[in-house]
Amino acid sequence: MGQNSASVLASDRYLGPDARRKEIALELLSDVEELPIVAPHGHVDPRLFAQPDYRFASPVDLFIIPDHYILRMLYSQGIALEELGVAPRDGSSVQLPDHRQIWQTFADHLYLFRGTPSGLWLREALVTVLGIDEKLRPENAQAIYDRINARLQEPDFTPRALYARFNIEVLCTTDRAVDPLTEHQTIRESGWPGRILPTFRPDALFDLSHPDWKKEVDDLSRVSGIEVTGYKTFLQAVQERRAFFKQMGGRATDHGAPAPVTYELPVREAKVIFKRALKGEISGDDARRFTGHMLMEMARMSVEDGLVMQLHAGSYRNHNRPLYARFGPDIGGDIPRLTEFTRNLAPLLEKYGNEPSLTLILFTLDETTYARELAPLAGHYPALRLGPPWWFHDSLNGMARYFDQVMETAGLYNTAGFNDDTRAFLSIPVRHNMWRRASVNWLAGLILRQVIDMDDARAMAYDMAYGLVKRTYRL
Amino acid sequence: MGQNSASVLASDRYLGPDARRKEIALELLSDVEELPIVAPHGHVDPRLFAQPDYRFASPVDLFIIPDHYILRMLYSQGIALEELGVAPRDGSSVQLPDHRQIWQTFADHLYLFRGTPSGLWLREALVTVLGIDEKLRPENAQAIYDRINARLQEPDFTPRALYARFNIEVLCTTDRAVDPLTEHQTIRESGWPGRILPTFRPDALFDLSHPDWKKEVDDLSRVSGIEVTGYKTFLQAVQERRAFFKQMGGRATDHGAPAPVTYELPVREAKVIFKRALKGEISGDDARRFTGHMLMEMARMSVEDGLVMQLHAGSYRNHNRPLYARFGPDIGGDIPRLTEFTRNLAPLLEKYGNEPSLTLILFTLDETTYARELAPLAGHYPALRLGPPWWFHDSLNGMARYFDQVMETAGLYNTAGFNDDTRAFLSIPVRHNMWRRASVNWLAGLILRQVIDMDDARAMAYDMAYGLVKRTYRL
Amino acid sequence: MGQNSASVLASDRYLGPDARRKEIALELLSDVEELPIVAPHGHVDPRLFAQPDYRFASPVDLFIIPDHYILRMLYSQGIALEELGVAPRDGSSVQLPDHRQIWQTFADHLYLFRGTPSGLWLREALVTVLGIDEKLRPENAQAIYDRINARLQEPDFTPRALYARFNIEVLCTTDRAVDPLTEHQTIRESGWPGRILPTFRPDALFDLSHPDWKKEVDDLSRVSGIEVTGYKTFLQAVQERRAFFKQMGGRATDHGAPAPVTYELPVREAKVIFKRALKGEISGDDARRFTGHMLMEMARMSVEDGLVMQLHAGSYRNHNRPLYARFGPDIGGDIPRLTEFTRNLAPLLEKYGNEPSLTLILFTLDETTYARELAPLAGHYPALRLGPPWWFHDSLNGMARYFDQVMETAGLYNTAGFNDDTRAFLSIPVRHNMWRRASVNWLAGLILRQVIDMDDARAMAYDMAYGLVKRTYRL
Repeated sequence: MGQNSASVLASDRYLGPDARRKEIALELLSDVEELPIVAPHGHVDPRLFAQPDYRFASPVDLFIIPDHYILRMLYSQGIALEELGVAPRDGSSVQLPDHRQIWQTFADHLYLFRGTPSGLWLREALVTVLGIDEKLRPENAQAIYDRINARLQEPDFTPRALYARFNIEVLCTTDRAVDPLTEHQTIRESGWPGRILPTFRPDALFDLSHPDWKKEVDDLSRVSGIEVTGYKTFLQAVQERRAFFKQMGGRATDHGAPAPVTYELPVREAKVIFKRALKGEISGDDARRFTGHMLMEMARMSVEDGLVMQLHAGSYRNHNRPLYARFGPDIGGDIPRLTEFTRNLAPLLEKYGNEPSLTLILFTLDETTYARELAPLAGHYPALRLGPPWWFHDSLNGMARYFDQVMETAGLYNTAGFNDDTRAFLSIPVRHNMWRRASVNWLAGLILRQVIDMDDARAMAYDMAYGLVKRTYRL
Repeated sequence: MGQNSASVLASDRYLGPDARRKEIALELLSDVEELPIVAPHGHVDPRLFAQPDYRFASPVDLFIIPDHYILRMLYSQGIALEELGVAPRDGSSVQLPDHRQIWQTFADHLYLFRGTPSGLWLREALVTVLGIDEKLRPENAQAIYDRINARLQEPDFTPRALYARFNIEVLCTTDRAVDPLTEHQTIRESGWPGRILPTFRPDALFDLSHPDWKKEVDDLSRVSGIEVTGYKTFLQAVQERRAFFKQMGGRATDHGAPAPVTYELPVREAKVIFKRALKGEISGDDARRFTGHMLMEMARMSVEDGLVMQLHAGSYRNHNRPLYARFGPDIGGDIPRLTEFTRNLAPLLEKYGNEPSLTLILFTLDETTYARELAPLAGHYPALRLGPPWWFHDSLNGMARYFDQVMETAGLYNTAGFNDDTRAFLSIPVRHNMWRRASVNWLAGLILRQVIDMDDARAMAYDMAYGLVKRTYRL
Repeated sequence: MGQNSASVLASDRYLGPDARRKEIALELLSDVEELPIVAPHGHVDPRLFAQPDYRFASPVDLFIIPDHYILRMLYSQGIALEELGVAPRDGSSVQLPDHRQIWQTFADHLYLFRGTPSGLWLREALVTVLGIDEKLRPENAQAIYDRINARLQEPDFTPRALYARFNIEVLCTTDRAVDPLTEHQTIRESGWPGRILPTFRPDALFDLSHPDWKKEVDDLSRVSGIEVTGYKTFLQAVQERRAFFKQMGGRATDHGAPAPVTYELPVREAKVIFKRALKGEISGDDARRFTGHMLMEMARMSVEDGLVMQLHAGSYRNHNRPLYARFGPDIGGDIPRLTEFTRNLAPLLEKYGNEPSLTLILFTLDETTYARELAPLAGHYPALRLGPPWWFHDSLNGMARYFDQVMETAGLYNTAGFNDDTRAFLSIPVRHNMWRRASVNWLAGLILRQVIDMDDARAMAYDMAYGLVKRTYRL
């Protein structure tokens, strides 16, 4: 990713700012920049790899429509989602602009992304993945559109070919608990050597308040072959699905929650609530308590089956309800909120936090918890690890704040390396490269102040780029 | 503000710290340092401009008595407010020291302001506005007092002359909703070309729990000519006042609240609560809910009349109640508290956040909301913009933290440029200059790490100094 | 602490990172590095000084078993506390490894401490106190064990000799309110000139919910000679103890609380609750309210007797209950939580915050309160001072964040200098030296940006190292 793009991307980008720090960082970077990519958590669609000759459609399909980071910023400045090619889901009929026009709108407003991670990811992907070494501008938008389009049709531009070119060692998807994993099966049977592993995400099964919950449970019965008639069969079916994901290569589960509440219900009460939910009669706090209870159950099952448990907490989903009603989720309207871990996780950690066979990885959108709660917790409980900066904080500043606020107290070895958490396959090498640059730059700062020596730094850089993620996710 | 003060204030002050960063920052600064000042929010008294020959009284009236930043720091170290010339309002009779003595007390304790914004503003104002290029010390306090006093009487030292000298393009005051804006009228009729615009601040009308609320409503009836007998006439009178402020050149409203609670009451309930309040019988949560409701109403009216809406949330006013009882408000006893925006603003944003005709500018004293809540909200809702660092955070470090934590997620173009929010007219050029220095220094850091290029940086520096504030406030 | 350890610890360590900043910082450091150490708050055992020929046992007793920072990190990576020589307190019989083996385990896992304060303190103590200038590694662990062991037996390695060598001027211990201070008495009578002063810590007396509370009250009756039969005699006995501590040289009280709640109970209610507690019948909120009430009482008594009041708030103690049940407290399972000061302290500050004879020093584990609450409070109330970064935040980054977030608003002179808060006597010179380095490095940054000049910086460096702590603690 270095020499051939020197015109736009200097090899010492994101390092420094001062010269001596750049120099040390570059030396460390040379050790780790070419290490394979381990991507243990993300949202890439497995269909990309199920079809050997899968092709990306237009630049707009690649960079704009599926990227809620891009959509939200343009929307925040008064550009309607329809103008960006997003079709309403509320049944209204809208004439969407053609992709060339959308691309032009995007280029006309690219200044909005100055200094943002999205702006950097786009710049890097254009240069390093697509070979576009001009800065995208309103004036050259159409020409660049043509160049990208042409590139997308070249023989080496299938996801499988890119997987190899990106030097990916393993890539984990995120899949509904009731997913039959057909694409994963197809990939395994195809003989292609890439490792695309599923991740078990049962959120929809655990949210009794969701309008589609009953349907999700029906799917669970169907796909597991266990008729869910109550709490006991529900647990059995969930356990069956975990076993299936594990058999399909899965290494981890993933759980999202507005708050990391954990709560152990007496079995009798869990049964009663579950029955009520089946009848559509849940009330009051039932849903919140059941979700907290199922996190406990997931920890219990992870102790048994060894699946690594991931918890992403703190997002207020679909904050903009009118927009959600019109366009559905994932259009940029998820907003973080203040998150409390110390008390909320106490029930789970008290029961399972000392288990050597459990690994629970925590992710937060509330950076105030880094130094105050997460680093002290991870620096104590054997089961805990801290995930890398997540979502809005997957950025150069976000990483710097994470290193600054987490590492002294948690210690590097209670962190989990990097994951990209992305839907955008083309951004994967870019994001991992930025993490590696941010890592070595942090280490260079420690060396300059003599907090660590070069031997330490080399070992740490390797672990941050490769070692920690492999060990933590048992890959 | 540059060359002639080189002895005390180097031209590269506040930049760097390293040489290369200073160099780039200075290059950017040369483009923007002399741009006109747009001051869209502050608390300068319009009387300064209503009288063409207004004169500032002594240095103490200028720098000490009206400045709660100065008062609080001296008070915190055991100096009684009376010693600083602040007269009690509780009827007690006190012999206040003369101004020379107060100035000496101040100079004797100036060391308390080392490294504080107040210390820097004073230093800068002395040098750049008053031409005092010696460091103020206990030994030279009286001599400097004399020099300032003499300067205050010079012909070019009227507020109007300073307005021109400071290169101010527009300056907005903050005015009670019931203010007849007599001074603004006088200024307009005087033929003087300066633009001093009012801002509509109705807090006192919306706080049913305030002892003077009824009196404020009476003033509203009187000044609007609409007899307020209930909720409906109240709204009409408020709307009339907004129209009057707008006609007088007003561009914005301003709202202060301990928490940014928004809440839509059914009209019937609003009426009932208002009636209760008129009878002095509000109970329980009435006041809090009514205030939250009126913020919703203000947004609704702004959608209609186009006044920009400002919300300053999170100050626990008059925390030191004994001192408040003796001296009244604004003596340094306002303390920030934890503030929650994501859930509190949801009702308002859901209803008006997608309106292209609304601009709502948010200010916080709780920096933890920058990256967690405000930047994601502003990076999504078309109606939202983030105001600059406010009050305690209007400082070099406060600005650096703001740039670090806000910009990656909100994007620069969802911010509102700078405002000084000051009562101290002499500090206006100083504060804007410090913002411009902090801005270019931040941009220089991005350039050094190659996050942006020089073209981007020039455009951003211009917008931070001038473009954003003009567009956001529709000036 | 400089020249003779150049091989491992460069004299400019922790400074910079850039060359010019290092240069200025070193110049400032040369003024303050050799100033006497004033240690106004910590947990060193007074027995070290009561016996003139006290000897430290093995390196493991010195560096591992009593250090919960070390224990927690090793435990977090799966090393059982028994492997580290910690004996269970639950009656179970365990064969602990010998100290050589524990030391080897420690050295084998020393990489876990890369970049952590514990890693730095150990490195510094080995070099500067013990003269071990090799990096500790698995391979040389036994040889270094031998060298330390030999050093511990040398004539100049008694705590009294080290006290002189460390250039300590005064060292305060922390002692239960019911402690008879026998060791302090022994020290005073021994004629040794070192100043080892007690600190009055009555937490156990004020926590009605603690299982041992009744026993603690019995001890209070016994040691004070005042039979505690109700609230009134309780207050008398507490007051007697304060007088005794003061007579023994004590300068301060110290209070720990999960939250800094202050609350004034009507005397009648305090009496009723106390009676209930004596009968073992407290209910609901009694304990929390009584603790808040006693903080108010402590402030009242401090106004009278002049003892400085310290409040350490925000730790969720013994979070890992199974581990606590087995090993007791102080094994690394205390986790910070979100802490609120603005509202919680209002009752106390309203009543006593304006008292010139009170000094209340606040400590927090929630850094979000630095800029938001603590600096504005300390920058206003005459009675308030902010303590230095505490516990997890006693680190290079923690200090930098403290300087960045506190100083602009509170002003340096509302802070309380440094304290080490340590049990580990050997780490005292190391910790104070790191604070001095962090201080001058911060000041050097201010000079480079011309926020302060060299004269200011010299005065500030002196006060940070020595002046503030002496004045604040009235030493």
